[in-house]
Amino acid sequence: MAEKRTDLALEARESFPRGHVEVQGVVLEKHYCEEGQAQITMVKIKDDAGSKAMKKPKGTYITIESELMLREEADREPLLLCICEQLEKMIGKMKQKSVLIVGLGNREVTSDSLGPKMTENLFITRHLEKELGSSFMEQNEYGCVSAIAPGVMAQTGIETSEILEGIIKKTKPDLVIAVDALAARSVKRLCTTVQITDTGISPGGGVGNRRRELSEKSLGVPVVAIGVPTVVDAGTIIGDHLEHVLEKQGYSEQEIEQFLSEILTGDTENVMVTPKNIDASVGRISRDLADVLNHCFQKKG
Amino acid sequence: MAEKRTDLALEARESFPRGHVEVQGVVLEKHYCEEGQAQITMVKIKDDAGSKAMKKPKGTYITIESELMLREEADREPLLLCICEQLEKMIGKMKQKSVLIVGLGNREVTSDSLGPKMTENLFITRHLEKELGSSFMEQNEYGCVSAIAPGVMAQTGIETSEILEGIIKKTKPDLVIAVDALAARSVKRLCTTVQITDTGISPGGGVGNRRRELSEKSLGVPVVAIGVPTVVDAGTIIGDHLEHVLEKQGYSEQEIEQFLSEILTGDTENVMVTPKNIDASVGRISRDLADVLNHCFQKKG
Amino acid sequence: MAEKRTDLALEARESFPRGHVEVQGVVLEKHYCEEGQAQITMVKIKDDAGSKAMKKPKGTYITIESELMLREEADREPLLLCICEQLEKMIGKMKQKSVLIVGLGNREVTSDSLGPKMTENLFITRHLEKELGSSFMEQNEYGCVSAIAPGVMAQTGIETSEILEGIIKKTKPDLVIAVDALAARSVKRLCTTVQITDTGISPGGGVGNRRRELSEKSLGVPVVAIGVPTVVDAGTIIGDHLEHVLEKQGYSEQEIEQFLSEILTGDTENVMVTPKNIDASVGRISRDLADVLNHCFQKKG
Amino acid sequence: MAEKRTDLALEARESFPRGHVEVQGVVLEKHYCEEGQAQITMVKIKDDAGSKAMKKPKGTYITIESELMLREEADREPLLLCICEQLEKMIGKMKQKSVLIVGLGNREVTSDSLGPKMTENLFITRHLEKELGSSFMEQNEYGCVSAIAPGVMAQTGIETSEILEGIIKKTKPDLVIAVDALAARSVKRLCTTVQITDTGISPGGGVGNRRRELSEKSLGVPVVAIGVPTVVDAGTIIGDHLEHVLEKQGYSEQEIEQFLSEILTGDTENVMVTPKNIDASVGRISRDLADVLNHCFQKKG
Repeated sequence: MAEKRTDLALEARESFPRGHVEVQGVVLEKHYCEEGQAQITMVKIKDDAGSKAMKKPKGTYITIESELMLREEADREPLLLCICEQLEKMIGKMKQKSVLIVGLGNREVTSDSLGPKMTENLFITRHLEKELGSSFMEQNEYGCVSAIAPGVMAQTGIETSEILEGIIKKTKPDLVIAVDALAARSVKRLCTTVQITDTGISPGGGVGNRRRELSEKSLGVPVVAIGVPTVVDAGTIIGDHLEHVLEKQGYSEQEIEQFLSEILTGDTENVMVTPKNIDASVGRISRDLADVLNHCFQKKG
Repeated sequence: MAEKRTDLALEARESFPRGHVEVQGVVLEKHYCEEGQAQITMVKIKDDAGSKAMKKPKGTYITIESELMLREEADREPLLLCICEQLEKMIGKMKQKSVLIVGLGNREVTSDSLGPKMTENLFITRHLEKELGSSFMEQNEYGCVSAIAPGVMAQTGIETSEILEGIIKKTKPDLVIAVDALAARSVKRLCTTVQITDTGISPGGGVGNRRRELSEKSLGVPVVAIGVPTVVDAGTIIGDHLEHVLEKQGYSEQEIEQFLSEILTGDTENVMVTPKNIDASVGRISRDLADVLNHCFQKKG
Repeated sequence: MAEKRTDLALEARESFPRGHVEVQGVVLEKHYCEEGQAQITMVKIKDDAGSKAMKKPKGTYITIESELMLREEADREPLLLCICEQLEKMIGKMKQKSVLIVGLGNREVTSDSLGPKMTENLFITRHLEKELGSSFMEQNEYGCVSAIAPGVMAQTGIETSEILEGIIKKTKPDLVIAVDALAARSVKRLCTTVQITDTGISPGGGVGNRRRELSEKSLGVPVVAIGVPTVVDAGTIIGDHLEHVLEKQGYSEQEIEQFLSEILTGDTENVMVTPKNIDASVGRISRDLADVLNHCFQKKG
Repeated sequence: MAEKRTDLALEARESFPRGHVEVQGVVLEKHYCEEGQAQITMVKIKDDAGSKAMKKPKGTYITIESELMLREEADREPLLLCICEQLEKMIGKMKQKSVLIVGLGNREVTSDSLGPKMTENLFITRHLEKELGSSFMEQNEYGCVSAIAPGVMAQTGIETSEILEGIIKKTKPDLVIAVDALAARSVKRLCTTVQITDTGISPGGGVGNRRRELSEKSLGVPVVAIGVPTVVDAGTIIGDHLEHVLEKQGYSEQEIEQFLSEILTGDTENVMVTPKNIDASVGRISRDLADVLNHCFQKKG
């Protein structure tokens, strides 16, 4: 089948035919919050069979979906607290920890700039300890937060993992949090979904195709990734629509695959589908995610 | 048929079935320049029949298509001279004229910001005449160029035509040139095509759906529009692909229309397809168009 | 005396020697709010004598000064309500009025971009009335707000007044509010002061030296100006410091003037003093002023 | 004496009273190029005595001063070639070398954003060798260029040297080139001067007060710094003018120092003097420096 890309474990799970109530090695749980206005889905990939079926690493993937993300500040606030809770659930109490927050992506490409823009709104404290002493930090209940937006391979010529390894060795954080723009399969999920995972970042994920994985294995400290889908590959959206039509026409899976491979040629490479208001959305979400992280790691953001 | 939108007269002409060698009231001419690396197409809509068939106002539409637009500066230069020539062909010798250049679109939406960004690189001279005298202008062979980027309805609450009418009454230019980002049907044409037309701007055209027409009729002076496609409506691209598949399957036009209307629902509204590097492309093309206009109206840009 | 420029009536008043308790034709009132954290000064220039002495047009100038402007959002909120009150005091109940908000200045020069950036955060409603009907507007208690950021002479080649006159004739607002970045004399006032005046904008004011006045006389509707100082002319700051030193040395006013004219040569032209964090400050204040205006003209911003 | 800061060795040398034709341990050479339109000064600090007198590390400082830097592209080109030559003179033939280019400074503060903006225009090639092979690199005469804009302490919480050390250990460049915005003493030098030095970056230098030194000693590879002054401390400019006046008045050095320390209080801290067109200047110079580096390290930039 022509590859239909998604960075969301939730969508990978949905892509199984409806009959597949259970996928071996994959656990799925859903619940609602904010009076039904936000849906929280936890996908646990428990073993290698599940990992292979889902084409994602083993681990926990929490997805928060809500149209509230598009609303005004006052409406978004309870949702942001809900994201804080989910994050805290995954990594435990955070105020004591020292954390390196990484804004992945290319700030010169709007749909890929979520991570770097987020870092601009973080409350950075690691250097304050040296300057003002640890009693100052405790009085203010400040955490130890450092951050970097390393840029992408095309900007630096250096693998992100090569940049981060040295920094981690020098600064010894307890935890890395990597924030990234993702590719989804469904247009509806763009800018309305947050995925939190303890698996780190997979190669080939993100809007700009990160190369090597960023994970506890490669970096030596736990890596929690927070992602928000900002693009759908044009090929993916066209393929999904075509498939839907052809299925209804009674074509076999093989025939459908044949059509798709004929249709989805180079034309749709390097093009992507974004919401019309992507500039404003990326600005808003990057500030929201910084607020969430400031709230988690500091007494007041 | 589900509406498949394009602002390019060239694409409107192409959308007629292959049998239609002639469209009543429409003349088509093609030639090449830059050793075959640029294709220039002139579509003339000569009468009401042609206008109705094409769903575009009567007038002349010149399209310059070339992959050179994506290349380095040295490669783009001959193409820019070719665009100058086509522009000069349409409006006659320009150095004597006084011109108001209008950058249409919303500078806060990357794909719609071509017009406003272009105005940032114009060489503006209208005010110099008052300050430095007309002999200074003649010595330097400066034209009389003014410019405005009026913003879009959602930013101003005012129709663009309402803003321009007053300015034109006050400043009395001989000519208005309106630069705008367009919607195309084909991904291949994004950022590789320039359309120059003497019909002004139609309602509903442009990336952000301009409301009222900007034309000699509405503004009282000739309006030449320069447009570059930066987006394809997601619905249009999906529809075109589906149609192609279904035609090959031997479905009737009516059946195809039926499928499309079922498929192209709200999901694809407000989403658009852009090249991955749209930020860089809009920056480059806006500077190129400013260079073209500076070259046309001033001795040296 | 070497010209020491300020756009703040408050500073013009302060520049009189200490003995001058009264300036003929000028009334001065001060009070505090926000528990002494904000100082409000009203300068009324009542007649031609006062106007000549102050080198400012007749009218009312309200200045709100507070270090709170530099603080976090929660700390700034009461101050913004206080600015709303002062604005309402000057122009009466505003929700019934239709208003054109003008963002003066050059968005490409950080210290002069306050006005244009403010317009990006306004809640624009004038076009909604046509689209959704007046009952929709009443239900939501929306005012009729339009806005424009016309750019500066060097960008457009057109006087701002020429641009605005036509728009005002077409759209017939009850009131124009012009927002502008100002030059102050004192570094302490940069980004901590808001001046509201019913005199419009004087020629030569603002960071970028606006040319013609924008006033009820020139535009035909009342013009309220809101300004925030973002720069001090380098010549002004040096001159003030020098004067201070020389006065303490017992030099006569004439001798001081002589020194200053020798010292303040071309070197300091075209340079200006700004706070180091001017980029962040202009971003924050432009959003704050938009919030103030949204609050004044709409039920909720 | 109240501290009068400059990052330019040239200005440190000039600050010696006119009688001091020779400063112990410091060699000064001047010549002109571009038909007298550019002045090149070499200051060599040869020993500890010179270093102490100049308050700068031992090494070579080349300064290129020219008003051509403010002109149009065609006029700037010969000057850029001249900067290339001086750079090549300092570091030898560069096309064979692998280089890490570091853009120092804070991209969110216009006057400090020169380094980060420069990196946006670099032609990065290090990753191409892995992807396309070394024969591809040789055919195209590409160097091995990587780059990073690490941000400043307030953004990252991490010392720049801590970020760079790890990257250098991983990527093993032959050379680091650090590009930074500088503070000058004279307004005339803003945006018209380039300093190239083999001493690296000193602590407390740059617009944003870099903390630790970046040098061969701290990083283990040679560090060449390229700097352009974009600001003058307000205190410095006022102090210089005051001193000039007071000297003419016949005051002693001690008396002058006394006055200055009384005058230059907190008022002028955190304020800086920049040219009015700093936004445009930083954009232009950052592209020019990227062009210079692209030209030095690649066959064609």
